[in-house]
Amino acid sequence: MSQRRGRVGPKPEKIAFQGERGAFSEEAARKLLGPEIGLLACERFEDVFRSLKEGRATGAVIPIENTLHGPVYENYDHLQNFDLPIVAETSVRIIHNLIARKGTKFSAIRRVFSHQVALNQCLQFFAQNRQIERVPFYDTAGSVKMIMEEGLEDAGAIASAVAAETYGARILRRSIEDDRQNFTRFFLLRRPEWVRGRGRQGAADAGAEWKTSLVFSTRNLPGALFRALAVFALRDLSLTKIESRPMRGKPWEYLFYLDFLGRADSPPASNALNHLQELSDYLRVLGCYPKGA
Amino acid sequence: MSQRRGRVGPKPEKIAFQGERGAFSEEAARKLLGPEIGLLACERFEDVFRSLKEGRATGAVIPIENTLHGPVYENYDHLQNFDLPIVAETSVRIIHNLIARKGTKFSAIRRVFSHQVALNQCLQFFAQNRQIERVPFYDTAGSVKMIMEEGLEDAGAIASAVAAETYGARILRRSIEDDRQNFTRFFLLRRPEWVRGRGRQGAADAGAEWKTSLVFSTRNLPGALFRALAVFALRDLSLTKIESRPMRGKPWEYLFYLDFLGRADSPPASNALNHLQELSDYLRVLGCYPKGA
Repeated sequence: MSQRRGRVGPKPEKIAFQGERGAFSEEAARKLLGPEIGLLACERFEDVFRSLKEGRATGAVIPIENTLHGPVYENYDHLQNFDLPIVAETSVRIIHNLIARKGTKFSAIRRVFSHQVALNQCLQFFAQNRQIERVPFYDTAGSVKMIMEEGLEDAGAIASAVAAETYGARILRRSIEDDRQNFTRFFLLRRPEWVRGRGRQGAADAGAEWKTSLVFSTRNLPGALFRALAVFALRDLSLTKIESRPMRGKPWEYLFYLDFLGRADSPPASNALNHLQELSDYLRVLGCYPKGA
Repeated sequence: MSQRRGRVGPKPEKIAFQGERGAFSEEAARKLLGPEIGLLACERFEDVFRSLKEGRATGAVIPIENTLHGPVYENYDHLQNFDLPIVAETSVRIIHNLIARKGTKFSAIRRVFSHQVALNQCLQFFAQNRQIERVPFYDTAGSVKMIMEEGLEDAGAIASAVAAETYGARILRRSIEDDRQNFTRFFLLRRPEWVRGRGRQGAADAGAEWKTSLVFSTRNLPGALFRALAVFALRDLSLTKIESRPMRGKPWEYLFYLDFLGRADSPPASNALNHLQELSDYLRVLGCYPKGA
């Protein structure tokens, strides 16, 4: 029922993501929230976080980790700098296609544009086609948009099938990624007040398997990381991920990003977090969310 | 005394590194081995490893970690794939300069070329100069070489002072990196036979502080990483670094790269390594070398 009829409907979704329309982040957003959501394409990851923080978006979808390339470090840094909790995760299989204008033959391709990460995931293709130059571009789907707009006849782009369709381009080679086991994990972020308003609903899902993500730094003492991990091991909480990030201004010291299975407010997890607080210089929970498929 | 006089001198050094002349890796190589060494500039990191493996170089210098950007992941992967032991480490302070042709004024600069990592380390500069576009290029020093060769009048490059000097260019802005605490750690690699031939000399250095680098994977069980770190903590061996890398073909499973203080052949370390072998699916020592300054 529409708002004109006097019913207060939920605020329509507008989900910020990095890249142009047709980006893998758009696919992740639809997987998390359904096909009908509104979208806000942003040029940079920082713009994605800022759009959500400043209320121009209702949520944000960011890639955090790829099974071939590793973490999206910049987003770990933003997670720490912005107070925007993680409320869901999903993963998307990444299929890279060589895309060109209709009419362009494979033999005419001399350079291929794409995001550096995508280029690095198609190294076998480039090793077998040494006549083709790799050209880093700011976005996968954006590289399709660009070769179409510029009418480049000697150029291709590496992007999703959705990007080819979005911009009316043609797929010359399907699935040129080095490894089919190529998945990217995405987080859905909300503003803190969204999470507070939803506290009870979260508790209803307590039967599902949950994950908690956090960031901490240890005192720079021998065995510090070992003791930090002990707070989870001693309570049979399973870690699913640990990542270290250099600390700005403190060369060779690190922040640790860690995911474990469990709800942050369950007794073992909240005891573990209190215990970790004793051992840490810095500790922050980044979010608690149902484990993705 | 020259070899013509009948003395068999040591084979002259030829050190492979990635990038063009003037790269930070060249600075690291000179810091490790002196100013007079021969150098072999390679386009890609893989070429650096291959040059050493196939005997076209006597050693290789690779960046492994930066205090702002984090690890150079590709080199972790190559360390695991090539059997080329780490024999030394050093770190170099990274000073980024905006460099242009002589005669180019700052106000004329519309785009700046450099390696993506260098561009990402000068984000404040770009935020303050929004008229300037960032253009990723394959190399820092190479971007100076290119703007000089192409005679680009609206372009700058971000690179070292040595690169500006090497190519006869001019520094327009000195030290534009976001953070002065910007260091890159480099490894010197040799062939395995070099290390074997040098066994006794190594033992003579036993008084110095040493580091050992290794890579392992744990069985995918709860607490597996905790138990792996216990083998070091239980023997008072200090970890200086831990890094996780996704395993190809096994989504959401990880290899761990770890550095600890100690010689791999000392009793506590060799016991720790035997203990870790019990717990690991895979374990390899990547090198044992004097701790850098």
